[in-house]
Amino acid sequence: MELTQMTLTALPGIPLVRPGDDLADLILQGLERGGLHLQDGDILVVAQKIVSKAEGRAVHLVDVTPSEKARELATTLGKDPRHVQVILDETKEIVRLKPGTIIVEERLGLICANAGVDRSNVAPAGEEEVLCLPLDPDASARRIREGLRAATGREVGVIISDSHNRPWRNGVIGVAIGVAGIVPVEDWRGRRDLFGYTLHVTTVGVADMVASAATLLMGQADEGRPVVLVRGAPHTRGDGTHWDCLRPREEDLFR
Amino acid sequence: MELTQMTLTALPGIPLVRPGDDLADLILQGLERGGLHLQDGDILVVAQKIVSKAEGRAVHLVDVTPSEKARELATTLGKDPRHVQVILDETKEIVRLKPGTIIVEERLGLICANAGVDRSNVAPAGEEEVLCLPLDPDASARRIREGLRAATGREVGVIISDSHNRPWRNGVIGVAIGVAGIVPVEDWRGRRDLFGYTLHVTTVGVADMVASAATLLMGQADEGRPVVLVRGAPHTRGDGTHWDCLRPREEDLFR
Repeated sequence: MELTQMTLTALPGIPLVRPGDDLADLILQGLERGGLHLQDGDILVVAQKIVSKAEGRAVHLVDVTPSEKARELATTLGKDPRHVQVILDETKEIVRLKPGTIIVEERLGLICANAGVDRSNVAPAGEEEVLCLPLDPDASARRIREGLRAATGREVGVIISDSHNRPWRNGVIGVAIGVAGIVPVEDWRGRRDLFGYTLHVTTVGVADMVASAATLLMGQADEGRPVVLVRGAPHTRGDGTHWDCLRPREEDLFR
Repeated sequence: MELTQMTLTALPGIPLVRPGDDLADLILQGLERGGLHLQDGDILVVAQKIVSKAEGRAVHLVDVTPSEKARELATTLGKDPRHVQVILDETKEIVRLKPGTIIVEERLGLICANAGVDRSNVAPAGEEEVLCLPLDPDASARRIREGLRAATGREVGVIISDSHNRPWRNGVIGVAIGVAGIVPVEDWRGRRDLFGYTLHVTTVGVADMVASAATLLMGQADEGRPVVLVRGAPHTRGDGTHWDCLRPREEDLFR
């Protein structure tokens, strides 16, 4: 019997990533190390952290001069004022602020804590660095996709994933902050169910669900599994962008 | 080489579920049909709709008398006043209301549209029914888990999943509205990363990420794949409840 299956495999032995590294190459090496062969329709999920590192998005705090606003916020947030300055540099709008927590709309339109500027997993303790999101994660995803296609001839999707908190539920989950080669949100409006009702479900967050599945396998505490090969995920190939994942401001009931 | 893998398999041939059906039995039949054998540590994800149906949570609208409030809201929402009455009956608090949309905190503490009361996939068109969430989805999950253990001797986790919209991102994703046998949210506070930093990530939404992975495989438009077997999902066994997934009211910045 043909079963409907989806398989996620973490690529083994991906090394610590350094600025300038070619992620498509690292992925190809990881595939080979695991005895894995790409197939058309596979999706590679790549953790934002290694994309940011490869693209040189680390900021040395010694190079940052905090503004007066950053110094004030740093007191509220209990963070290094220089870290807060980098957060503000990545921020379009502060959405919520309370002691210890800053939720913003950052440069890419994501509503998230700290504008995605993270201190963990960045550099040996002592070297004070923070890591910003990639400048254009869709472009990062496209580059990886094209590198993989050039090397293998396979048409795959690529998702750059990050971990986000949510307003009403505990625990971070994976979301797609960059995509290439897939339609990240599928519109099922007008489809009918078994009984002929028009479905009330409007759209399905395909890329985010793939990102969550992969994030679970990646773990969070180390960088040993920052790339996951997803095979069998129901999706539609196409030219999507992470902007498709963002609810338009005029539909936002909770800002 | 031992690869870190997670496999999701939709159980084939699960029939349309009727009130009183024993879901553990239906799952065991689906496993057998697919030539699948449970292993300790597997997780079964079961779509809320079939749980609600088996537990007789369908409401015939002909039996519902809408209140004045329901009739008023029905105009705003463009819904049948009797459907709105059932939504109100399941609601603790209306969180947001605008033409066409009602977001509530429902009986189980979930912040969701329509209190989870759905019209799709319920009954042949013409018979006007809506389907409410299970009365106690954790208990539903425990019953399935115990039924599977009694039949197979295996210790598995069970998640009852539903599809939710989100405030800032397009597309529904899967969430866990009932759990048994697993810790749904893992606390990683205090873990250290590769460089010795204490991780800023606090908690990880394990059950929700498993639910999202399975929801993707289930699809939405039919009931052909309402149960997914998940093998290899990193998780901790334990006595969790869906209440662990809910952010405490005092931490809610967005209500």
